[in-house]
Amino acid sequence: LAGIFIALTHFPVYNKHGEVITSALTTIDLHDLARVAACYGAAGFFVVTPLEDQQRLAEKMIAHWRDGWGYRYNPHRSQAMGLIRLIRELDEAKREIAREYGAAPLMVGTSAVDNGNRLSFSELRKKIGDDRPVMLIFGTAWGLTSEAINECDHCLAPISGRTGYNHLSVRAAAGIIMDRLLGER
Amino acid sequence: LAGIFIALTHFPVYNKHGEVITSALTTIDLHDLARVAACYGAAGFFVVTPLEDQQRLAEKMIAHWRDGWGYRYNPHRSQAMGLIRLIRELDEAKREIAREYGAAPLMVGTSAVDNGNRLSFSELRKKIGDDRPVMLIFGTAWGLTSEAINECDHCLAPISGRTGYNHLSVRAAAGIIMDRLLGER
Repeated sequence: LAGIFIALTHFPVYNKHGEVITSALTTIDLHDLARVAACYGAAGFFVVTPLEDQQRLAEKMIAHWRDGWGYRYNPHRSQAMGLIRLIRELDEAKREIAREYGAAPLMVGTSAVDNGNRLSFSELRKKIGDDRPVMLIFGTAWGLTSEAINECDHCLAPISGRTGYNHLSVRAAAGIIMDRLLGER
Repeated sequence: LAGIFIALTHFPVYNKHGEVITSALTTIDLHDLARVAACYGAAGFFVVTPLEDQQRLAEKMIAHWRDGWGYRYNPHRSQAMGLIRLIRELDEAKREIAREYGAAPLMVGTSAVDNGNRLSFSELRKKIGDDRPVMLIFGTAWGLTSEAINECDHCLAPISGRTGYNHLSVRAAAGIIMDRLLGER
């Protein structure tokens, strides 16, 4: 397996009015996505924010769980949090992965909005394990901007449930998507 | 479809030391599971807590999103929160569903621990849509007690990812389980 990576980006994303913003870190998102990454064998979990105070906040939180009191309190959580890598922008992740794996990752955006040029879940499932690592990108707030999605190599199909309601939290959506891509079939 | 229901129980569950406790409500669990329920067409989302102050807290929160400022702020969230039904113990849900649907629900517990007598995801998937409604029960904290699991008609297979790590949040687990049972195949 060349590896799958996930990224949670806090910029550029939309707010509810469709304006481009930098969202605030939510510690529960980091906990939940790190655990999903650990469960499905992701090689790393990139947390992307350009704000320095937010980076310091995240560093503190991660160190707490990885090395400090949190490790003794819950070693499982510690194991998951150890997958987190803090970066300022997605390009850093591309460069780091290219350096470590010898190939730039296939960048795949996720969005609840259908904007054409989609990969289905089964199409992406087949690509995982190819020579090229896959980077799955999740947005926060009201989702990745169209511009951010358009910079990806592909965009993954939206999750369709049974009702047309597709306003899932990123915590639930990340679990469902990783399970569709990597879970037992 | 006779209907699928979900329940989130705060008693009886384990704490990290294996002691039986009543856990505190976490508002983000209610939001996330309500949205999963709405996405996959659940007929209702029962929130189970025996503590009166916790019930009042939940009532306030639900009313805020269903009728108040929250409705105007985010009608999608309001739609999902409208599925929540507050109860003191699981038996109330059984009685209410039996009254409304003419058949007591098949009670299916979820647990990360494998305790034998399991239904696989595909086995349970086939039962949804039978005459009998299905009630899927999620625990909080360190999970439903063995006793609570043993009182269920069935217990669902644990989620196996790729690594043996199965310490997912209930928010991610609920999404994955509902998708395995009701998502497109």
